[in-house]
Amino acid sequence: MKHFLSVEHMTKEEIIALLDMAEKYRQDEYELTKQVFSANLFFEPSTRTKMSFIVAERRLGIEALEFNTENSSMKKGETLYDTAKTFEAIGADVLVIRHESDDWADELKDRMNVPIVNAGAGKKDHPTQSLLDAITIYQEFGSFDGLNIVIAGDIKHSRVARSNAQMLTKLGANVYFTGAPDFMDDSLAYPYVTMDEAIEMSDVLMLLRIQHERHDQFSSSTVNYNEHYGLTIEREKKMKEHAIVLHPGPVNRGVEIDTTLVECDRSRIFKQMSNGVYVRMAVLTTQLLKWGIIHEHDIKKRNSTFGGQPVTKMRSVN
Amino acid sequence: MKHFLSVEHMTKEEIIALLDMAEKYRQDEYELTKQVFSANLFFEPSTRTKMSFIVAERRLGIEALEFNTENSSMKKGETLYDTAKTFEAIGADVLVIRHESDDWADELKDRMNVPIVNAGAGKKDHPTQSLLDAITIYQEFGSFDGLNIVIAGDIKHSRVARSNAQMLTKLGANVYFTGAPDFMDDSLAYPYVTMDEAIEMSDVLMLLRIQHERHDQFSSSTVNYNEHYGLTIEREKKMKEHAIVLHPGPVNRGVEIDTTLVECDRSRIFKQMSNGVYVRMAVLTTQLLKWGIIHEHDIKKRNSTFGGQPVTKMRSVN
Amino acid sequence: MKHFLSVEHMTKEEIIALLDMAEKYRQDEYELTKQVFSANLFFEPSTRTKMSFIVAERRLGIEALEFNTENSSMKKGETLYDTAKTFEAIGADVLVIRHESDDWADELKDRMNVPIVNAGAGKKDHPTQSLLDAITIYQEFGSFDGLNIVIAGDIKHSRVARSNAQMLTKLGANVYFTGAPDFMDDSLAYPYVTMDEAIEMSDVLMLLRIQHERHDQFSSSTVNYNEHYGLTIEREKKMKEHAIVLHPGPVNRGVEIDTTLVECDRSRIFKQMSNGVYVRMAVLTTQLLKWGIIHEHDIKKRNSTFGGQPVTKMRSVN
Repeated sequence: MKHFLSVEHMTKEEIIALLDMAEKYRQDEYELTKQVFSANLFFEPSTRTKMSFIVAERRLGIEALEFNTENSSMKKGETLYDTAKTFEAIGADVLVIRHESDDWADELKDRMNVPIVNAGAGKKDHPTQSLLDAITIYQEFGSFDGLNIVIAGDIKHSRVARSNAQMLTKLGANVYFTGAPDFMDDSLAYPYVTMDEAIEMSDVLMLLRIQHERHDQFSSSTVNYNEHYGLTIEREKKMKEHAIVLHPGPVNRGVEIDTTLVECDRSRIFKQMSNGVYVRMAVLTTQLLKWGIIHEHDIKKRNSTFGGQPVTKMRSVN
Repeated sequence: MKHFLSVEHMTKEEIIALLDMAEKYRQDEYELTKQVFSANLFFEPSTRTKMSFIVAERRLGIEALEFNTENSSMKKGETLYDTAKTFEAIGADVLVIRHESDDWADELKDRMNVPIVNAGAGKKDHPTQSLLDAITIYQEFGSFDGLNIVIAGDIKHSRVARSNAQMLTKLGANVYFTGAPDFMDDSLAYPYVTMDEAIEMSDVLMLLRIQHERHDQFSSSTVNYNEHYGLTIEREKKMKEHAIVLHPGPVNRGVEIDTTLVECDRSRIFKQMSNGVYVRMAVLTTQLLKWGIIHEHDIKKRNSTFGGQPVTKMRSVN
Repeated sequence: MKHFLSVEHMTKEEIIALLDMAEKYRQDEYELTKQVFSANLFFEPSTRTKMSFIVAERRLGIEALEFNTENSSMKKGETLYDTAKTFEAIGADVLVIRHESDDWADELKDRMNVPIVNAGAGKKDHPTQSLLDAITIYQEFGSFDGLNIVIAGDIKHSRVARSNAQMLTKLGANVYFTGAPDFMDDSLAYPYVTMDEAIEMSDVLMLLRIQHERHDQFSSSTVNYNEHYGLTIEREKKMKEHAIVLHPGPVNRGVEIDTTLVECDRSRIFKQMSNGVYVRMAVLTTQLLKWGIIHEHDIKKRNSTFGGQPVTKMRSVN
């Protein structure tokens, strides 16, 4: 049975199916008619990804268990496998895991009896982030074919760069990288452009976060980063009229992007976060269906049996 | 649209309306028929206020998101605004915020599309605490007119002192301060009395917590605090027969109050906490109604459609 | 009114009634029709016990409040009593408490108006752990009469050893201890055997965790612990054909037990964890019934009014 672990093993059809389901969840509210438990095991600090998963789960009526690594048996030296197996044993129907290791899934994938969803793996993978970036682009352009997408920043330390480049290429876009020399990664086979080329050519400019917490010391590359490699007010003016700007957050204001541009007309930064909830709802539902934990008839429109009262809609943000 | 930020901007009518609604929530159980999400963003340690909000939310059926500052993106240097905006983007319908800054609301109030509820702002405001204190007094005396209320303790560092003095004055009470000289605050225009005068005159004696965590070093004012400025067994005996004692908690037993008096006949300390849940339910509902996130018909009596089974009542405490 | 505090004060009949109710909860899903709040106050690190209680509560539809000691008023020096009373005041219907003190319940038991459930008391008691061990044995052998049960390991520092020896003796089993000399406790009146005797005689071998976090320094007893006192591959082969192995977790792999044996045929380690949820559901329901907070008619089969859709079952584990 298949876990949700990496972009690498997904087909274009699977990706499109998830985006379509996410779009359905954006239009209407759905909930599960069965009690389902998720375990959210986050071994790295996280606000938006963890909270996004929890909101996705709660919107579906899934019971969300939160595992706090700082106040737990991990202090007692338990392995990741034993922690995961414990949550399976106490009734988790799906495990959502973030861990600083690139390959944490290796010790789990053949030994668990419930689906695992990757919420971030070291510097390697972050497939739900890629989905939320993809759906944001799809909502904007209606297609990926021939779009020029430039991923800008700390390529070397970024799981977002790897996952997104793979997914967007599969979907038909032309992916490029740009960034400071220290941040380049020669092992990835995508063409590099300069920041000024990126500004001119890109339909989508994806800024990456400078991962201060992943650097042993503040790199020389981050001195005057904004001026050399960030989105300044001057550079933004030179972008194509229809081009949009993405950033996975949290933003280092004044580093990757000028603080006045975070909510500019072409920014989709907060819209990405809203979309994150919908794609995670789609991933969770898909995994629960695949594993036979729920069936199609267990998913129903919220409040639909109560005579069609208007349901809460998430506020739209640009 | 109006947030719930300070006592200063509330009218007497608005306060009374909230107390009446809180009283309604004390009498019967109500829940929302729509799925609503709250984000509880606490940037300072808190048990009772945070838990009180969460219970208030859960009693109404609101999905309560908890933000743990010690295990989050705040470590990555994110601003309060970006954190708040993130929660708005992922679907929070209301933000409950406590932060150590006096003026944290300034950067948020004109830029958020959901209501904000102040759960504590530095040394300045704590409006839901004032409401729970007010309702406790109202339940006791049925009116505020002409009541002598003395606020005793660390006036200078207390947001409770500021908020309560304002609210109780608006409601018609006579407010006085008492406390050690180091703890006086000349910028506040309320008369000071001695502790012995306070004991004799007060209908309500509101003890404040010595905020050890707000003092750089243990002040000389706190040496023998109980003897000089606290409620001792001797002082309690001299109080008016009908006078009551309040304390926002957590109590420093043997400092602000003798440990044997925490649950004495005139103490309403735990009753205040119970009331806190009801006033917070009232504040949350009122804000959600004002912003059009829910409507009157979305609030219904719990279990009322199931044939009137008896509902859980909170145990009554002194 | 009776709290759930220790094995010592339970009769055999009470224990059997809880095991029977737990078995009922394993067969079918039940939920409460009233809103009930639990407060989970864990003053020691815990994953499996805390999460097991929370799953037990959520399966019953109980609102589970979580108290994080590292981010709370306990930092402000509040007593356990005041914390417990606060949760009672804000509406908790039951308190689930773990604390490092052996006798923490003494200051609470006569002063609370809601039932207290012991989730671990220092080195003294862990009664829900004993119940989950007992039900696992009961599922295996159908009876306790005459079973040889050897508890192996750090007897001196283990609340599990104390509680289990008491409960299993009440239920009719023959209880023995084994372990390194440093870990023996002469105050407990159960016979000691050697590890090799234990291997030969036991129907049930209960391995205890080496509590590194309870030792001031790593004891000489833990050097080559596995070789001298742990379950090695060689020892496992010499066990009776039907004998089973238990461990309360988290396992120190390669210390108490060879890592390849954690999921061997005779291991019931993860099954114990699943059973933990059911016995905790039974304990919680029993306490809520005893205290009149719920009544029998408030417990109903989940989804039973919706036409008998299949309900989620917890995956069966070995």
